[in-house]
Amino acid sequence: MEQVRTILLHRSAYMDNDLEADALRSYLKDKGVFVVNLMSSPGAGKTTTLTKLINLMKDEVRIGVMEADIDSNVDAISIAKNTGVKSIQLHTGGMCHLDAGMTKNGLDEIDISDLDLVFLENVGNLVCPAEFDTGASLDVMILSIPEGDDKPLKYPLVFEKSDLVIINKIDALPYFNFDLDKCINWIKQRNKNATIIPISAKTGEGILKVKEYFINKLKTFKE
Amino acid sequence: MEQVRTILLHRSAYMDNDLEADALRSYLKDKGVFVVNLMSSPGAGKTTTLTKLINLMKDEVRIGVMEADIDSNVDAISIAKNTGVKSIQLHTGGMCHLDAGMTKNGLDEIDISDLDLVFLENVGNLVCPAEFDTGASLDVMILSIPEGDDKPLKYPLVFEKSDLVIINKIDALPYFNFDLDKCINWIKQRNKNATIIPISAKTGEGILKVKEYFINKLKTFKE
Repeated sequence: MEQVRTILLHRSAYMDNDLEADALRSYLKDKGVFVVNLMSSPGAGKTTTLTKLINLMKDEVRIGVMEADIDSNVDAISIAKNTGVKSIQLHTGGMCHLDAGMTKNGLDEIDISDLDLVFLENVGNLVCPAEFDTGASLDVMILSIPEGDDKPLKYPLVFEKSDLVIINKIDALPYFNFDLDKCINWIKQRNKNATIIPISAKTGEGILKVKEYFINKLKTFKE
Repeated sequence: MEQVRTILLHRSAYMDNDLEADALRSYLKDKGVFVVNLMSSPGAGKTTTLTKLINLMKDEVRIGVMEADIDSNVDAISIAKNTGVKSIQLHTGGMCHLDAGMTKNGLDEIDISDLDLVFLENVGNLVCPAEFDTGASLDVMILSIPEGDDKPLKYPLVFEKSDLVIINKIDALPYFNFDLDKCINWIKQRNKNATIIPISAKTGEGILKVKEYFINKLKTFKE
């Protein structure tokens, strides 16, 4: 067996958008609008989870959705059709993430004057979205069972940054070699303060817990 | 139902690495070393597919593997342990993709003088790796069934750029709502020249076809 070697390649410099993000957070606090940044790999179930969740919450909370994508409108159309809430598609023009300036553009377009809560569905990508503060009040990620239980080892930053980690597609647990306890342990090693909620957006299991989580966060935010 | 609107957000300027990539391709042609850039979402099965494939090919072809990851060594260790071929881990230091300079660094470290074929496992990400030419001779991507059949609509560039699209985890087709014909059609709309091979890295189905594909490509390259 060959020895495995490790090389550290250079990292490019990103423009710092932290100041802009902090300014956006203050503005949203003044307006009383709670913005949730939702991150995941492609196909982990962001849109399906949002659809189930919004239908449980929309009679109590005024919700808007901003769907970021490289090139298609399928997610915003799906949200509008399946929940009826105000929805907007953000095309990133090839960009792999959203920053605070893009988020502000989207919020200006969707018009937040009649909203309590805005879900921002980030580009499907576990790397870049975690590196750019969107100015959201809360960072949430979805990991799905078919992706494998080792993802907290391989994509550490998104786990470190997320206030809530949703583990989706638990209905597929019998089908995949995924150790849920081990995965939760690895997430806790990355981020001991993270709330972790296993769900199945397909069957609805666990979605009520996610709803309660957001209702509580929103209540604290509005106080 | 609200109307869905679309906004085009600005795109950042990337440094052009095309010249460096072309120079690397010429250099590799001179050396007679065929480099394959392998892209996919996190958890689509790059390492498992490579492991099965290499074990089928390694008696005929001298193979090396470069595993790119943000922060862990699990993939290079897994390849070395399960195939015995020369394997190296590239840490990108947070970077979401590889460029030609990074690829050249890795090739210098792994030492290609005794190799015919090098697999470069890119960072798990459907966006950024497609935007940067690594200098590889061939671009290959893996899409997996649990990610959903709409990915060619949402991540067009990686499908446009790939010579070979492997559709993995077809053993899970009965479990997910994935229309294989529709997906293949969408891939063909993006890239009519792409070769498409459905496989299950878990059961081994289709892996022989992938082997034949690479053996033919390697033969043409060496002529």
